[in-house]
Amino acid sequence: MENLQRVADLLKEHQLDWVLLTGADSVCFATGHAVPIEIGQSPFTGGPTAVLVSAEAAAGVAAANVEGQQAPDLPYEIYEGFACSVTDQTGNYLTAVRKLATTLGVGGNIGFERASCPRLLNEVIGDGATAFDTPLAKLRAVKTKTEIDKLRRAAEVAAIGQTICRQESTVGRGELVVMNLIRSAMEMAAGERCPLAGEYVASVERNSALGTPPGSYVIQDGDPIICDLAPRVAGYWGDSCNAFVVGTAPTDEYRKMFNAAKSTLEHAIAELKPGLRVCDFDGKLRTHMEALGFSYPHHSGHGIGTSVHEYPRLLPDETAMIEEDMILMVEPGAYVPGIGGLRTEFMLRVTATGCEVMAPFVIDLDMSK
Amino acid sequence: MENLQRVADLLKEHQLDWVLLTGADSVCFATGHAVPIEIGQSPFTGGPTAVLVSAEAAAGVAAANVEGQQAPDLPYEIYEGFACSVTDQTGNYLTAVRKLATTLGVGGNIGFERASCPRLLNEVIGDGATAFDTPLAKLRAVKTKTEIDKLRRAAEVAAIGQTICRQESTVGRGELVVMNLIRSAMEMAAGERCPLAGEYVASVERNSALGTPPGSYVIQDGDPIICDLAPRVAGYWGDSCNAFVVGTAPTDEYRKMFNAAKSTLEHAIAELKPGLRVCDFDGKLRTHMEALGFSYPHHSGHGIGTSVHEYPRLLPDETAMIEEDMILMVEPGAYVPGIGGLRTEFMLRVTATGCEVMAPFVIDLDMSK
Repeated sequence: MENLQRVADLLKEHQLDWVLLTGADSVCFATGHAVPIEIGQSPFTGGPTAVLVSAEAAAGVAAANVEGQQAPDLPYEIYEGFACSVTDQTGNYLTAVRKLATTLGVGGNIGFERASCPRLLNEVIGDGATAFDTPLAKLRAVKTKTEIDKLRRAAEVAAIGQTICRQESTVGRGELVVMNLIRSAMEMAAGERCPLAGEYVASVERNSALGTPPGSYVIQDGDPIICDLAPRVAGYWGDSCNAFVVGTAPTDEYRKMFNAAKSTLEHAIAELKPGLRVCDFDGKLRTHMEALGFSYPHHSGHGIGTSVHEYPRLLPDETAMIEEDMILMVEPGAYVPGIGGLRTEFMLRVTATGCEVMAPFVIDLDMSK
Repeated sequence: MENLQRVADLLKEHQLDWVLLTGADSVCFATGHAVPIEIGQSPFTGGPTAVLVSAEAAAGVAAANVEGQQAPDLPYEIYEGFACSVTDQTGNYLTAVRKLATTLGVGGNIGFERASCPRLLNEVIGDGATAFDTPLAKLRAVKTKTEIDKLRRAAEVAAIGQTICRQESTVGRGELVVMNLIRSAMEMAAGERCPLAGEYVASVERNSALGTPPGSYVIQDGDPIICDLAPRVAGYWGDSCNAFVVGTAPTDEYRKMFNAAKSTLEHAIAELKPGLRVCDFDGKLRTHMEALGFSYPHHSGHGIGTSVHEYPRLLPDETAMIEEDMILMVEPGAYVPGIGGLRTEFMLRVTATGCEVMAPFVIDLDMSK
């Protein structure tokens, strides 16, 4: 419940009495309750699972009966989502949040999340509520010991996925077949179904185009692979990306791109430390990559926690200061039509003096490694 | 765009001029734009993809740049979700919806979805907007020809999954391993990643307890299996459930339960037709099952479309009339501690005089079939 206290302290700092949390990420951050998200909003809920937290660290959760009381130390207002009779999930949800607010004595100046608060809860928080998204995002960027442990586990699950990816990417298999073999290994390791962001894309044409979704394309000899795996494990996300070539040896041009991305990732590991501004760190990576002849049309990385992409994003205009116990994804890549595309990505924890790779996996064109 | 016209006609009937759609299901229903939902709300969006529709069937979509213009005949207001510089996704989203509303000339009496409308969009629709969830749910219950084709494809994908399930459920495999082999076959058939609801649960103890999530449990000889598969294919859901025993022949008690559930499903196929009230249909199934010595502590089934569970739910107190071209899941089951649990489920389309099983698969304890 350390994060509840951190939220409470933040409320005091911003002269707020309460905050209503409605984002699945914020709910998990504050309470540990991992909202199921794999099919979007469940038809057995009436709205996003809601948490109320006071500046004195009083708190409670309003959740559907299908979600379970995952934060056993907190009071829950459970409403009927799944039932054996006709029920109004949305009405039940509103009643539960109202009741929770009454029980807890919610009043005064109230913060809310602009990105996720439903119109329905306006009557609970009032028209004058204050958007609290930005302070919360900044608070969440620095992780507690407990969060670091959870993120390490998620990083380990992602690393297992990357190991399986190198073993199972063979000629004649469909992209989605390999992706699900990977998912299988990750989920067995996690012991649960894991919401999964990312991609698994083969072929020169599609790898050099960013954002191509995996499909039924069947792997051919010599295909380059991009495998970006981000599983959520017990509410916290891991992330990772690797690249290699199936079968035939990579071309010299591909090898050059690969070495540039790997070298930039190594440069990031050498350079990342507290006290750097994000934009300066991002600049170091882009400069290093450009000196090797390539560039990437995306961020250099991003924060990660109870959301797969969170503050701070590693961008040329992000002036945030890098701090100890931030966990940052770093993912330099290169994309050249006719040759292919690739990206290499580790989870890095900022330490007092540098950084630690949270769960390293083999990034190497020598497939015997 | 037939459904846009249906929404427009419904608005006229309810004396509304416009409706703001924000549920991923309603957005897909009205426009065919399938919002990605697999990791909940994407960090590259600022709010739920929004559609505005008028009583004259004018319409437009506000969507993040990462989603693509999936409904090519409609005007889009695309906002920056993913960007290479610091951006305010939520602010961008609000600006886009505002701009879309201005371009389309939104005004007058406005409907909205109580279950999904963000507080943020209050300024677009005003405090006096009218909840439109119930009329929309009722409209969506009867499917168009185009929707039936899409649902048939989703049913076929689910049926492929059920066939693979019987082949791949072998002693020594983890539940999540089998589930992902199934997912692999379904996704390769669909040619895309499919959001997946459902479960795959083995063992007597866990099958007799409802709602147990799949995990790393390893299948043993004689284990009963419950496999409930609901993939979303191109925005429309399929659903299905099957049950069988791995290896050793089932016990007489299990066989009796199985036969009761299968017989109740067959009874449903024989009885389902337009003009029946849902509660009466539900009652027929429960009565049939009880005469065979069992009962199930859940709904007899539910509607399905752009949401995996939709109106009407087959419940003892649902008085809705069954109509032609409703597509209804029917899923009788039996659960007995010490013996096991099971459920058998088909997608049934109500025809003019009876019903059609949309994509049948083998439900049989003889595993050679």
